[in-house]
Amino acid sequence: MKILRTPQEMTAWSTEQAVLNKTIGFVPTMGFFHDGHLALMQRARELADLVVVSLFVNPTQFGPQEDLAAYPRHFDHDQELAASAGVDVLFAPTSEEMYPPGATTTVTVKGDLSNRLCGASRPGHFAGVATVVTKLFNIVRPDLAVFGKKDFQQLAIIRRMTLDLHFGVEIIGHPTVREKDGLAMSSRNAYLEDEDREAALSLSRSLELARTMVANGERDAPSLTVAVKQFILSFSGTAVDYISFVDQFTLAPVAEVNKDTVLALAVKINDRVRLIDNGFVITKS
Amino acid sequence: MKILRTPQEMTAWSTEQAVLNKTIGFVPTMGFFHDGHLALMQRARELADLVVVSLFVNPTQFGPQEDLAAYPRHFDHDQELAASAGVDVLFAPTSEEMYPPGATTTVTVKGDLSNRLCGASRPGHFAGVATVVTKLFNIVRPDLAVFGKKDFQQLAIIRRMTLDLHFGVEIIGHPTVREKDGLAMSSRNAYLEDEDREAALSLSRSLELARTMVANGERDAPSLTVAVKQFILSFSGTAVDYISFVDQFTLAPVAEVNKDTVLALAVKINDRVRLIDNGFVITKS
Repeated sequence: MKILRTPQEMTAWSTEQAVLNKTIGFVPTMGFFHDGHLALMQRARELADLVVVSLFVNPTQFGPQEDLAAYPRHFDHDQELAASAGVDVLFAPTSEEMYPPGATTTVTVKGDLSNRLCGASRPGHFAGVATVVTKLFNIVRPDLAVFGKKDFQQLAIIRRMTLDLHFGVEIIGHPTVREKDGLAMSSRNAYLEDEDREAALSLSRSLELARTMVANGERDAPSLTVAVKQFILSFSGTAVDYISFVDQFTLAPVAEVNKDTVLALAVKINDRVRLIDNGFVITKS
Repeated sequence: MKILRTPQEMTAWSTEQAVLNKTIGFVPTMGFFHDGHLALMQRARELADLVVVSLFVNPTQFGPQEDLAAYPRHFDHDQELAASAGVDVLFAPTSEEMYPPGATTTVTVKGDLSNRLCGASRPGHFAGVATVVTKLFNIVRPDLAVFGKKDFQQLAIIRRMTLDLHFGVEIIGHPTVREKDGLAMSSRNAYLEDEDREAALSLSRSLELARTMVANGERDAPSLTVAVKQFILSFSGTAVDYISFVDQFTLAPVAEVNKDTVLALAVKINDRVRLIDNGFVITKS
């Protein structure tokens, strides 16, 4: 596995592969790999001739009060895991390389897709994501890119941006990978102490609760929201950021749930760790 | 010369050329070709294996009170001129292809580069330019792109955007091509009636005036601005939008002119046609 540090080296490598007519599958990450990341890499491995993984903790997608400095990092371990997953190139640039001196260009996906859910709690977050993914697509020049469905709103925004700006990159959404107890895998789970674990499970268990209620005939989103809220708050140490039943494509809130409805959740655990999760309320057979 | 109408066809062609290791030179235009456009095509012809010219009157760079509907169009003639200039592909998409239904993604170069000069008079104009050039770069995938220096602020913004977003496209600025009487070539010159012509010459003659004054030892930008303003207003039917002595890189106004100073002008002729022009005040030997 090659480790490339500069955009110039990365683009030179990709250009060589284009001449050889090799397809490139790309997995953008912020590192601190878990089985969720490895599943994305394996998916890219199946779909493309070559796999590039980027590892870059992007400062512009963190708010001023957020956890940029504390975000967990473990480069040596990440390198071993990526190599074992059959990754061809690990692209790990510096912030100075990604954001040249005086950089002022921003990519924004305007409207509800960016303003709802996490966009409401984290102003500027998705502009940071869209901008860095634009840079990475231009540097890596992939044929396809794999994103986790855990970051459901991010995936919708990347799809919109890719279509609007004509990147010609196929966007693949990969199912959320979970711990045995149901907790969605996330690098931020590293912040969870033992005493946070039960509260952290409130998210995945809420998805199960909503699915059961819907299977039993409940379709009214406000009623489901009340039930999910009561359920989450029954776990000690939880504070709800949002509970939203939304259309999978537009992210617009729905009054009645249907097969395209996703329950999206953000919950703060013991006032310290913010977790998100989501899932369809009617499970696809 | 091929005429391609859809982004899919254009990208497929470019991808074939990449496999053949051919370089692509690109000239984005809004059509209604004049000798200035042809000079850009010839420059691209010299620098790259293949030349792609796009012809797209981009709606998002026109303000609500501007001349989108009236903008001059003459496709058949443009097609002949491009073919005679040795262009390989004329890419002429529709607005619906360039802006898919529901498109909301915008590229903005924030700060002074976009807010000054034409940015102050035409809010949203440069976001429209940056967004469409991003789309075109992604669709055409050129190695280099040639832009006219007449649109001096646009060129600075495209350079910034290309660097910031890592397009890997070499940006070439080509000198302004002028009529024999000094008028900078522009598709909007088609709006000029005979009685506008003398007033239209106030721009290029102001550049000459400023150069003469600077050659005679004047370095004070405010004094030069007063002289240029008086000179322009001495032409009947002129109204000044801006007269600005700025740094060629930052577009910041200067107090004293030097070798990096550009005089940038926008003048409205008979309250109907807005013209721009610019040039160094110290001519490069």
